Amino acid sequence: MTGKLTGADVAEHNSKDSCWVIVHGKAYDVTEFLPEHPGGQKIILKYAGKDATEEFEPIHPPDTLDKFLDKSKHLGAVDMGTVEQEEKVFDPEEADRQERISRMPSLAACYNLMDFEAVARQVMKKTAWAYYSSGADDEITMRENHAAFHKIWFRPRILVDVEHIDMSTTMLGTKCSIPFYVTATALGKLGHPEGEVVLTKAAHRHNVVQMIPTLASCSFDEIVDAKQGDQVQWLQLYVNKDREITRKIVEHAEKRGCKGLFITVDAPQLGRREKDMRSKFSDPGSNVQGGGDDIDRTQGAARAISSFIDPALSWKDIPWFKSITRMPIVLKGVQCVEDVLRAVEAGCDGVVLSNHGGRQLETARSGIEVLAEVMPALRERGWEKRIEVFVDGGVRRATDILKALCLGATGIGIGRPFLYAMSAYGIDGVDRAMQLLRDEMEMNMRLIGAPSVADLNPSLLDTRGLLGGHSVVPSDTLGLGAYDPLEAPRFNEKPKL
Amino acid sequence: MTGKLTGADVAEHNSKDSCWVIVHGKAYDVTEFLPEHPGGQKIILKYAGKDATEEFEPIHPPDTLDKFLDKSKHLGAVDMGTVEQEEKVFDPEEADRQERISRMPSLAACYNLMDFEAVARQVMKKTAWAYYSSGADDEITMRENHAAFHKIWFRPRILVDVEHIDMSTTMLGTKCSIPFYVTATALGKLGHPEGEVVLTKAAHRHNVVQMIPTLASCSFDEIVDAKQGDQVQWLQLYVNKDREITRKIVEHAEKRGCKGLFITVDAPQLGRREKDMRSKFSDPGSNVQGGGDDIDRTQGAARAISSFIDPALSWKDIPWFKSITRMPIVLKGVQCVEDVLRAVEAGCDGVVLSNHGGRQLETARSGIEVLAEVMPALRERGWEKRIEVFVDGGVRRATDILKALCLGATGIGIGRPFLYAMSAYGIDGVDRAMQLLRDEMEMNMRLIGAPSVADLNPSLLDTRGLLGGHSVVPSDTLGLGAYDPLEAPRFNEKPKL
Amino acid sequence: MTGKLTGADVAEHNSKDSCWVIVHGKAYDVTEFLPEHPGGQKIILKYAGKDATEEFEPIHPPDTLDKFLDKSKHLGAVDMGTVEQEEKVFDPEEADRQERISRMPSLAACYNLMDFEAVARQVMKKTAWAYYSSGADDEITMRENHAAFHKIWFRPRILVDVEHIDMSTTMLGTKCSIPFYVTATALGKLGHPEGEVVLTKAAHRHNVVQMIPTLASCSFDEIVDAKQGDQVQWLQLYVNKDREITRKIVEHAEKRGCKGLFITVDAPQLGRREKDMRSKFSDPGSNVQGGGDDIDRTQGAARAISSFIDPALSWKDIPWFKSITRMPIVLKGVQCVEDVLRAVEAGCDGVVLSNHGGRQLETARSGIEVLAEVMPALRERGWEKRIEVFVDGGVRRATDILKALCLGATGIGIGRPFLYAMSAYGIDGVDRAMQLLRDEMEMNMRLIGAPSVADLNPSLLDTRGLLGGHSVVPSDTLGLGAYDPLEAPRFNEKPKL
Amino acid sequence: MTGKLTGADVAEHNSKDSCWVIVHGKAYDVTEFLPEHPGGQKIILKYAGKDATEEFEPIHPPDTLDKFLDKSKHLGAVDMGTVEQEEKVFDPEEADRQERISRMPSLAACYNLMDFEAVARQVMKKTAWAYYSSGADDEITMRENHAAFHKIWFRPRILVDVEHIDMSTTMLGTKCSIPFYVTATALGKLGHPEGEVVLTKAAHRHNVVQMIPTLASCSFDEIVDAKQGDQVQWLQLYVNKDREITRKIVEHAEKRGCKGLFITVDAPQLGRREKDMRSKFSDPGSNVQGGGDDIDRTQGAARAISSFIDPALSWKDIPWFKSITRMPIVLKGVQCVEDVLRAVEAGCDGVVLSNHGGRQLETARSGIEVLAEVMPALRERGWEKRIEVFVDGGVRRATDILKALCLGATGIGIGRPFLYAMSAYGIDGVDRAMQLLRDEMEMNMRLIGAPSVADLNPSLLDTRGLLGGHSVVPSDTLGLGAYDPLEAPRFNEKPKL
Repeated sequence: MTGKLTGADVAEHNSKDSCWVIVHGKAYDVTEFLPEHPGGQKIILKYAGKDATEEFEPIHPPDTLDKFLDKSKHLGAVDMGTVEQEEKVFDPEEADRQERISRMPSLAACYNLMDFEAVARQVMKKTAWAYYSSGADDEITMRENHAAFHKIWFRPRILVDVEHIDMSTTMLGTKCSIPFYVTATALGKLGHPEGEVVLTKAAHRHNVVQMIPTLASCSFDEIVDAKQGDQVQWLQLYVNKDREITRKIVEHAEKRGCKGLFITVDAPQLGRREKDMRSKFSDPGSNVQGGGDDIDRTQGAARAISSFIDPALSWKDIPWFKSITRMPIVLKGVQCVEDVLRAVEAGCDGVVLSNHGGRQLETARSGIEVLAEVMPALRERGWEKRIEVFVDGGVRRATDILKALCLGATGIGIGRPFLYAMSAYGIDGVDRAMQLLRDEMEMNMRLIGAPSVADLNPSLLDTRGLLGGHSVVPSDTLGLGAYDPLEAPRFNEKPKL
Repeated sequence: MTGKLTGADVAEHNSKDSCWVIVHGKAYDVTEFLPEHPGGQKIILKYAGKDATEEFEPIHPPDTLDKFLDKSKHLGAVDMGTVEQEEKVFDPEEADRQERISRMPSLAACYNLMDFEAVARQVMKKTAWAYYSSGADDEITMRENHAAFHKIWFRPRILVDVEHIDMSTTMLGTKCSIPFYVTATALGKLGHPEGEVVLTKAAHRHNVVQMIPTLASCSFDEIVDAKQGDQVQWLQLYVNKDREITRKIVEHAEKRGCKGLFITVDAPQLGRREKDMRSKFSDPGSNVQGGGDDIDRTQGAARAISSFIDPALSWKDIPWFKSITRMPIVLKGVQCVEDVLRAVEAGCDGVVLSNHGGRQLETARSGIEVLAEVMPALRERGWEKRIEVFVDGGVRRATDILKALCLGATGIGIGRPFLYAMSAYGIDGVDRAMQLLRDEMEMNMRLIGAPSVADLNPSLLDTRGLLGGHSVVPSDTLGLGAYDPLEAPRFNEKPKL
Repeated sequence: MTGKLTGADVAEHNSKDSCWVIVHGKAYDVTEFLPEHPGGQKIILKYAGKDATEEFEPIHPPDTLDKFLDKSKHLGAVDMGTVEQEEKVFDPEEADRQERISRMPSLAACYNLMDFEAVARQVMKKTAWAYYSSGADDEITMRENHAAFHKIWFRPRILVDVEHIDMSTTMLGTKCSIPFYVTATALGKLGHPEGEVVLTKAAHRHNVVQMIPTLASCSFDEIVDAKQGDQVQWLQLYVNKDREITRKIVEHAEKRGCKGLFITVDAPQLGRREKDMRSKFSDPGSNVQGGGDDIDRTQGAARAISSFIDPALSWKDIPWFKSITRMPIVLKGVQCVEDVLRAVEAGCDGVVLSNHGGRQLETARSGIEVLAEVMPALRERGWEKRIEVFVDGGVRRATDILKALCLGATGIGIGRPFLYAMSAYGIDGVDRAMQLLRDEMEMNMRLIGAPSVADLNPSLLDTRGLLGGHSVVPSDTLGLGAYDPLEAPRFNEKPKL
Repeated sequence: MTGKLTGADVAEHNSKDSCWVIVHGKAYDVTEFLPEHPGGQKIILKYAGKDATEEFEPIHPPDTLDKFLDKSKHLGAVDMGTVEQEEKVFDPEEADRQERISRMPSLAACYNLMDFEAVARQVMKKTAWAYYSSGADDEITMRENHAAFHKIWFRPRILVDVEHIDMSTTMLGTKCSIPFYVTATALGKLGHPEGEVVLTKAAHRHNVVQMIPTLASCSFDEIVDAKQGDQVQWLQLYVNKDREITRKIVEHAEKRGCKGLFITVDAPQLGRREKDMRSKFSDPGSNVQGGGDDIDRTQGAARAISSFIDPALSWKDIPWFKSITRMPIVLKGVQCVEDVLRAVEAGCDGVVLSNHGGRQLETARSGIEVLAEVMPALRERGWEKRIEVFVDGGVRRATDILKALCLGATGIGIGRPFLYAMSAYGIDGVDRAMQLLRDEMEMNMRLIGAPSVADLNPSLLDTRGLLGGHSVVPSDTLGLGAYDPLEAPRFNEKPKL
């Protein structure tokens, strides 16, 4: 009658062979798309023939279907009154979570960035928490990222006039009020219904640069639209196998005013994060990674090479990037001095020393450790002005930021802490997190005896702790947990013979 | 009738715009003083229009109001009968504490300085304990201070005649019976109603020098008045923005017989101590630091720059200090060899290698570690007699003291342990703490084979543990607490699909 | 009547002086064999005069009695109806185990090799678990084996085309699809009723080499019979005092197609494993090692020198081995560079750097640590092509394998993890374990930027963590458990005098 | 009537001014002896006027009173029927201990030396356990003694003929069947009613040398009388202020056949052991050290300088010792290379690198660490044959012994483990402990590839772990226990203002 599809029409297409789903009241044929889905086909199949809106919403930007699914697969509106409603099952875990939310500490009780993490762990949905908080393999690199800062100690100077503290600096030509930026992190709506624009707004309040993630939950344009005044944004880029798609993204970003292009080079294949997989094991519906899936597992790594990220990306592609944009080009995810030198030679404008927050290669070194290797080599060649060196991973305190600046970093990326602050307290949380960092920065620049960023230099550090290698490695909790310790003789024990 | 103010008169002035408080039966107008208060305005506002005596008493010397509040703001006596009495609320924590006090271990059961700390933790008011025991950020430096001593091992000599042990030494021209001194610590009345004079009396019993803190709960004169015989005291100084105030303090101290001027140089801004803030979070009335205060937080670090401590203090000020006093000038809070050399060149008489008990800059190095860096550089230049090098932080055992002396320190400052002994057991506690150290000193000088302080030298130590940097860093308990460890597969777990 | 022996006939021979046992319905006189039994005589004596089949079965290959017991001691068939049945005692531990088995996690919930271990620990028989999981003395070497990998960090390269990953390699002339092999481990039927052939079949699925253990529960021929197609197997050899027995084993293996001879050189005497002994203490029936046995203990180490393993084996024997076989000869259990160089000079084709899974010499170094010592010395002499260097011990992740390959290893042996996977989930478990490793390999070769095994080299590693020696040694749990820590003063404590 | 004293006669002398005690039915006047008592006067005063036999017995050799109390103070027999009996108070701790004893593990369940310690901790009297198990200050050195061995790893050799193992060696001219000896430990009767003779008998069974302690519970002659055949004993000596007493002891020992004189040089004053003091705090009756005693504490260290141990002993005394005995002279407690070289020059025959089991100087280095410093210096001078170097402290495994032998030690002393074995299981325990070590020795010499002691050498070790200093120091449990860790925000927490 209305020309609309009925629930029954859609419900027939509930298998791998013909798979339709409903999103926001419209039906789509995703049969051919199944093997391309970065999150694995299993999660789509769970909703085959059904309404997937609730699952789809927090993970995908609104323009996803328009962008990635051919118009011929858009089947049109569905009469939602005819779609069978699934009964909600009572979930005791969710009830517990709601109870914890009712008792949340006030925002004023968060004194540092770890505090947001501790609160978020209690109030976030388990699966969202697991997605944000997980890392590769045994999460040794993820933990090392923060621990590595503690191997570096300060050698502060006294009797320096530190009445006026100036923490402003310049990154890629942009004057910033403080030397950190919001680095790109995926799927913001898992933590907060508004997604990445929350970070945009908070960044504006503190005059801090935001890097827009390729895998955001908001669309790129939504995030750009949310910026105010002369706020600066950069683009983080996963390079598609189809370079025309990539060209369009880059050109669009430049047109919309992005001031830097950060090409991710540490993720030719997306990492496995077992904590995340474990949390979603009995709930495949929320499995962002597609793990815990026997069918997919046999396809193994191959699956991960969807067209979204081109594993064939190589140094040969750099000239092409330089040809399509005037934005400064920064390689994100460099992990040794050899590649930094090569980046200089390739004419890149910057590098981010990063291991992707410990989510990709396990036992990759921390960014701060790599920085200590890189800067002397640059200075030796007189190249320290030819490239801007950024670093991210494990930053939780202004002292961490200051150590990176003393070693020679231009700017410091912070990701998860702002996600946790946003997930627990929304924009006010992110605002407070930034304010706390700013207060810590001001205080610690005074205590170090360095009133401006220009005064920060390697002589303010004792880095001998780095020389001995990684002598105290974060423990492998799985291995230790599986270990069966020796016992002393048991009382009551007599041989039976 | 009596010309006295009534409670109602005062109660009208209960806001930021007009703020009166009663202290010891007199009213004061502190409206203009509010932003200057080192403890933050929130705590004063809690008592706006009310009697603040009980809160004021343990934190401020009796002459505070006379010294820092203009006479025009002294409003005169209040008819206390007309002031409304606040009802005391039953506090279960306080009841628990009183019960613990009733079961306190006898003083004789304390065998070392850690034991006083363990007892004090149980019997002190929570907020007072938190003020004394807290440090900067993750308290890594605070814990490192003690842990660093364990990286140094002894190389004792045998078959030395150690029948007679002489542990006397000379500091800044004063003959002392033992090479430690009581270093300056703030707010003694938090721990004991009599405050710092308890330490004065105990120091006299053991012929030990006491350093008088600027931020004492007793007035400077009360502390000087408490000294006996030829007991020696030094003055610890925070330098005021108004140098005339500073000049008066220094000249007064010299006149009253102080034998050393210790200028604090590691606190251009007072540190944040989160344990302290957390303990006072739900009781702003006792918030010494002003943390957990949304209004103040937005003012951030700026707040901390009251006129009490001048962040502009610099090397240029040293000649002026030399011009106003004949007391030896010692810089307290030096943290690298470069600044020690500069202090020699500036004509200073001494330095204290100190990180302020781990309360200021986080991941500052321990004093003992800095000492191991400083002394060889001084000896290399033949300057080791041109300056006296003191060290404080983390000292709990005579072996700690002996390690510092072997490296070349002139004297060792001890602070918190005496506060804990005083808080738990009063003067007898401090007396016993000093006696325990003395006994440990005598025994260990025998065991090392060094019958006098002059016999202590670097060949008695194995310091290789310092060379590798800080290989075992005290753990960041917040970070570890927030970390969500990986799990093995759960039994009962089947995929639901 | 039937000519068969009766239960009563056998039951008479129930002592050391005359000891008969029944196995699979036949009686054997093992009196003279008692002192030769590698598992100690106590366990045989427990079944003296009785049916030992159930105990015998999982530990011994079916051809054991034919091979090692003179025909004259084969007494013939027993009328099993006349043999007294022992009543099964209810075992609450076994009931608990069965209950745990009923709740086992699904195989899909195992995401890595540690997970199989965690499951196996819960579902295996306690004594079988203890045999597999135990190591020498304090198990420090056993744990160090895995921990040592964490001292090595990656220095990955970016922007390398890693679309196609080729992890195939060649070991002893055999093309393998992945650079690990199934190393020899004893007594497979303790974990799974089918024993080592399970591993044979799984190895075939992944085109992985299997090393056949001398002490397998299946007979050698059963294991060879189970191979499919051109699957490759190697022989692990314990050298018998009687070289003719050894010659027969070697010649037979070569005839059956084995492609490598791995002579175990780290076990002149079998190690003591206290966890294993403890687990069997009150159940001598299952005591594989013969520990917890007062009689045997007084014989001490001597007992262990049965003729099965010749402690007199020496370098002088190598030419003889070369004379009896054309299989490549590999020394398994080399632990220092000196012996690797000597192996080259002796004309060996390979070495396995191994400490026998931490089951022999305690505080022997990990294979990976020895590898880092060995390869530079070989390269210095230009000998790195003259010998193939294998390594085993503690491998749990593809990153572990990659680190060994980067250092220069030809292949990596994995033992226990496959036993655990087999014990918990049978062949599907081993299959999944291998698949997980393969997936991890592919992903990590991409993330390191090395598309083929040939691209792996030492510049991809940061091995500084090895230079400082073993700075963080796995703790000795026994010692720590026995330690009585110091206490603070006790409340309620007053002197009584 | 009988000429005997009555209980009432004695009971009158119950104070410091006149103090009589009864021991074994005889009365003694110890008034003048009080300040001389090495265990403090408090414990004697507890029994002033009473029967002290039960307390006296386990601590003192039977000839103590004859030796150290002038005959004029021997007051003669007491009519014990007239002495008031003290009622035994029910002691719940003792009842628990007896219950634990009833469930003791069988001796066969002890597989290593730590196991005896774990059992002894449960079955010994608390105060006896505390005396044996305690160390100086924070017991860091005590624990380091064992932990230090784990910094050294083996580099074993393969393909060495190890069929015949010869672990015999020669110490001070005596052929020993195994390279360890029973070192001197005080107060054996605390652990076992027969005291040190238990060790004598066990040592004989294994042809092991015993060092006789000055502070034994048995008399010297009892211990010598217990030796059998050509068993060898050495004498450990505390040097008395009165050298004539020392001369008599030495001459008597030589006459009774002692083959070595071990002069203790690391105890000019007896150490404080706080665990011991704590255990006896509320039971001064058993306070061996005299701690927890306010009166004694004020005398401090002075008290400890009784005439029993002369703190003035020095290098000048060595010639005198050489003049009074032909026994080889060994200095026990040397702790750095300088003093070893000096001992060679002084003509000593040996040194024991020892820190007195961690009971004297805290953060003294382990003997094994000092050994690694000493031997290269001796070899450099070609002096390694001029002196025998012994080492003790923390030895629990044959691997520990082997590491010391590889470095160059002549013999290894073991103390506490045999005391624990004796306390828990009597002579059979000590016998088994020695047998376990012997078995471990034989096995590990095979596994290292060294069939005789002469084959042990430094190339069999990887000692790089020692180079980095003591990078992982045993934790200070008191300090950590007193530390109040930081907390995350509390749920339910809102500001109250």
